[in-house]
This record gives sequence, structure tokens and C-alpha cells, in this order.
Amino acid sequence: MSYTPNPALDLVLERTVPVPPEKVWAAWTQPELIVQWFTPAPWKTAKAEVDLRPGGGNCITMESPEGEQYPNAGCYLVVEPNRLLVFTSVMGADFRPVTPSNGAEDLPFTGRIELTPTADGGTHYRAIAMHAAEADAQRHAEMGFNDGWAAALDQLVALMS
Amino acid sequence: MSYTPNPALDLVLERTVPVPPEKVWAAWTQPELIVQWFTPAPWKTAKAEVDLRPGGGNCITMESPEGEQYPNAGCYLVVEPNRLLVFTSVMGADFRPVTPSNGAEDLPFTGRIELTPTADGGTHYRAIAMHAAEADAQRHAEMGFNDGWAAALDQLVALMS
Repeated sequence: MSYTPNPALDLVLERTVPVPPEKVWAAWTQPELIVQWFTPAPWKTAKAEVDLRPGGGNCITMESPEGEQYPNAGCYLVVEPNRLLVFTSVMGADFRPVTPSNGAEDLPFTGRIELTPTADGGTHYRAIAMHAAEADAQRHAEMGFNDGWAAALDQLVALMS
Repeated sequence: MSYTPNPALDLVLERTVPVPPEKVWAAWTQPELIVQWFTPAPWKTAKAEVDLRPGGGNCITMESPEGEQYPNAGCYLVVEPNRLLVFTSVMGADFRPVTPSNGAEDLPFTGRIELTPTADGGTHYRAIAMHAAEADAQRHAEMGFNDGWAAALDQLVALMS
């Protein structure tokens, strides 16, 4: 399932990391690993709930240095182990829509994590955030998408190496 | 993939029809059939675009008796031929979120069409509209969900019999 990003609507982080796809996949999908790398320091990940199947819900709770918690709920859409994980913030468990009226965050996006093995045992890693509108993509960029997702990936690599 | 409806958030139309699951599935998924039954008369279906795969987009354009057209875009989520079709109005092709800011309708829902064969060659048909909030479900009910989806199903049965 290949995908060509739309430069106006998508944000992309692409890197090669010295960790095999199986370990990157584990880090993205196992709650006890997610809490160790997902949120760039000095924030941390307080809790991760994962129902890893298309239509399964997830909720990752980030915590600020002051101890305030921010739960982020979503739904898995595509689960192809060690290759492709697609999830979204606009649905919860069983593909039920979420909207601002029931507490959804106000920056809707769908995430794609694409993993390709490299010849030397690493992973070509491509993370894409897909938005509904250019304004959403711009806002996500201004919120620090690139630095934030890169810092989290550094933490993932450090954890899994 | 079984699902237990939530009475506060879901609307359900459940019927047994004298048409086998294969024919109900064809009517729901083939554009040249969709245009013949999908919209209760005196409205009609002007056009149907279907990319039948998880993450594939669809767009069904309804037309009022006065000739005004109303396109409804969405995305397929689960495609299990002759058994289960899940789709949503809160995403378009490739699972990209849609929001009011890029033209989404303002009644977000996810649809499930569940087909079970009956002993006499018919289909136990269950159609579910899942909403984000009680207010959305109530509004969908007041817009005539039950009568509308039942009338469309009658048209499907007449077409495929």
C-alpha cells in the first residue's frame, strides 16, 4: 500500500535509523515500550492503551513537566506488522467518529508510519501526518511537528539500540 | 468482527430480506447498481464513485427533485465481501480526515453494513450508523434515518430480486 504525500496537506519526517523494522514496530505498538520513548523530554508519556487491530482504539497520555496530563485518543486503521501502521485522531474504538463535541482535539490528522528494511539491518523510516486542510498542516508544523517527531524518534532509537 | 451497538450513539436498521448476501453486497459496492437504488425516491442518485478497499474513497451524489446535487464523500474502512462493509464520512481517500473546513458535511458518522445468510437464501441485514455524540444520533434520527434507510433498502430489494 504505497502512498504519495501531498505537500500542501501532509507533513513528512523521513530518516534511516540503525534499528531493524521489527524493533521499531515493537516500540510503536507495545504499551510498555511506548511510554518509554513516545513524548519528547522533558515531557513524558504517562500511559499508553493499545488495541492493535484495524478499528481498535488507542489512547496515549502525555504529561507536562508540571504534571498536567493530556490524553490523545485515536483508532488504528491499518496494522501490517513491521511494515505499516496507520492511525487517526478523528475516530476512536470501532471507527466511531470523534468530534470537538465529544472532546476530540482540534487538530485532526491521520498518521502513517512506514518501515522498510535497509541492507545493513536498519530501517528506512517515514512518518507522515495527513491533514484535512492546509491551515491544519501549517499549524501542526508551527507546533513543532518536525522537531517533536524527530526528538521522539531519537528516543525510540536510543531505547531499542 | 462483531459489534454491539451503543443505543445512545448508534442508529440501527435490522431486517431480513429475500435477496442473498452476494446480491446485497453487489448493490452496495458497484457504482452502476448504487445509482439505481441508493437514494429514496423522488430523490435520485446522480453519480457513484467507488474505490473499494480499506482507505479507498467514495463519493455518492444525491439529486433532489429540483435537480440540485449533493455529493457525499467518504472512505471505506473494512471491506469483507458479502459480509461486512464499514465506511465513514469523516475521512476521504487514503484515510485523510475531512472537516467542515474542507467541505465535510456536518453530521459525521461511520456506517456498518452487516450481512448474514439465512437458511432460505436471503440475508439478515443490519445497517448501523455510529455517531460521535448523542446529539448527532438524535439529529440523524430526526432527519429520517429509519424511514430513509428502509426505503432505500426496499429499492435495493426490488432492484436485485
